[in-house]
Amino acid sequence: MKKLKRSSRLVEMTQYLLFRPHRLIPLTTFAERYSSAKSSISEDLAIIKEVFETEGLGDLQTLAGAAGGVKFIPRIPKHSSLEIVRGICKQLEQRERVLPGGYLYMTDILGQPFIINEIGKMFATHFAGRDIDVVMTVETKGIPLAYATASFLNLPVVIVRRDNKVTEGSAVSINYVSGSSKRIQTMSLARRALKEESKVLIIDDFMRAGGTVHGMMNLLQEFKATVKGVGVFVESGEVNQEEHLVEDYISLAKLTGVDEKTKHITVSPGNFFEEEDLEDN
Amino acid sequence: MKKLKRSSRLVEMTQYLLFRPHRLIPLTTFAERYSSAKSSISEDLAIIKEVFETEGLGDLQTLAGAAGGVKFIPRIPKHSSLEIVRGICKQLEQRERVLPGGYLYMTDILGQPFIINEIGKMFATHFAGRDIDVVMTVETKGIPLAYATASFLNLPVVIVRRDNKVTEGSAVSINYVSGSSKRIQTMSLARRALKEESKVLIIDDFMRAGGTVHGMMNLLQEFKATVKGVGVFVESGEVNQEEHLVEDYISLAKLTGVDEKTKHITVSPGNFFEEEDLEDN
Repeated sequence: MKKLKRSSRLVEMTQYLLFRPHRLIPLTTFAERYSSAKSSISEDLAIIKEVFETEGLGDLQTLAGAAGGVKFIPRIPKHSSLEIVRGICKQLEQRERVLPGGYLYMTDILGQPFIINEIGKMFATHFAGRDIDVVMTVETKGIPLAYATASFLNLPVVIVRRDNKVTEGSAVSINYVSGSSKRIQTMSLARRALKEESKVLIIDDFMRAGGTVHGMMNLLQEFKATVKGVGVFVESGEVNQEEHLVEDYISLAKLTGVDEKTKHITVSPGNFFEEEDLEDN
Repeated sequence: MKKLKRSSRLVEMTQYLLFRPHRLIPLTTFAERYSSAKSSISEDLAIIKEVFETEGLGDLQTLAGAAGGVKFIPRIPKHSSLEIVRGICKQLEQRERVLPGGYLYMTDILGQPFIINEIGKMFATHFAGRDIDVVMTVETKGIPLAYATASFLNLPVVIVRRDNKVTEGSAVSINYVSGSSKRIQTMSLARRALKEESKVLIIDDFMRAGGTVHGMMNLLQEFKATVKGVGVFVESGEVNQEEHLVEDYISLAKLTGVDEKTKHITVSPGNFFEEEDLEDN
């Protein structure tokens, strides 16, 4: 590549890093790419690092030494997350979302890639420090959330199916009771979809008592896998604590009430915003 | 926001534009954001524009006048797409992918967000000029491709379901014959999921004769919607031209043979790479 001026190099390096989160990029990669001295590259990175931090985009971690380099860790500040989630809660409280049976219509919100990416960034921020091999979800509505999260963590995605497709090869199936329907349902995962002893992050769009997530956990035992975390977009607050099948999870929003008659809905930020104080930046 | 130096401003503007494709951003937005003169902003944009074009990231379109501004149009050059697709074809030809029944296992490839994003960029490049309101797919494996495409086009996604979920409200259902199973299947879409007379881009992971895509087209008639394009990741070349139910589509790869006995698989770049010459940059 031809030698670039600092200004062009900064644009180039910014996009290069943004599209390669959680990957160690040796300084020599940049030095060779731009025919520049490593010292110039280091100065560029210092500028990028400062903007990324100020803007709440994430950290640039620099590792010194022969095996060193730079790694972009996407990170959205808690106060920005809270602002976004408050906006989503407001949308979710619109009266016309009440469906027969007291269900809440949220498919349109999950159909907006911009929102999905922000949610993915929140999960990626929270679970960044854990040693995870793969992000898992069950079809259908959790899929975009799982991909967005995995994209920011630079991890692959595994989708648990509700049927057993012939195009997936041999599979492990389990039965579970879904909290919302109280019916016995089946979920299955192809043998070759997940290596044994994988470390797994479970992501889903909605959780009541946790029957589906619990089902995924049982399925994972068949693969000798370890669950490293559970993240759900919306949890139902209408379930008693004793009914909960899953203990350790984070939720971004909490649905505390849907009144089918008055069409009054109450949604508030989830337990993700409870634990710590919001002073983290 | 405090006044930034040009170097920091370039990093900031680069990330701002990359995360907001196909959105018109008035120059005043940047001028106010950085307390800078519009002339400085224009100079910055010229630098960013040049790097984006040289790097094959896309175009920065500048619209003059009071309602003017700048718009980032993600665009991956055809030769880069071809290189990526050739790599994917090579992976798809691995012998161990042959499943009983002559099916091809490709779930692992569709589980990699980095690949999904590149495929989404290809579809977004091809369909960028068309007047589209929404990207549509049918569950399950097309979903990440649809979201990636929609993300680069700044459009919402609508997912057609294979069942009729109570949590979606009233829905329109149709029956169709899937090419691969030759069975009658059902697909449905919630009434409130799609406005009437929408202009729709259909994205899917695999197409044989096109029964599923054709089903989606029939379903769309019920919504008085117009199909503005069809993009599939892999098409089967084992179908006679006369059997094709869908005429106008683009495919990124073409599966021309799976031999269950010898485990020999042949995959080549799809019709996306046939039409035009590759001299486009």
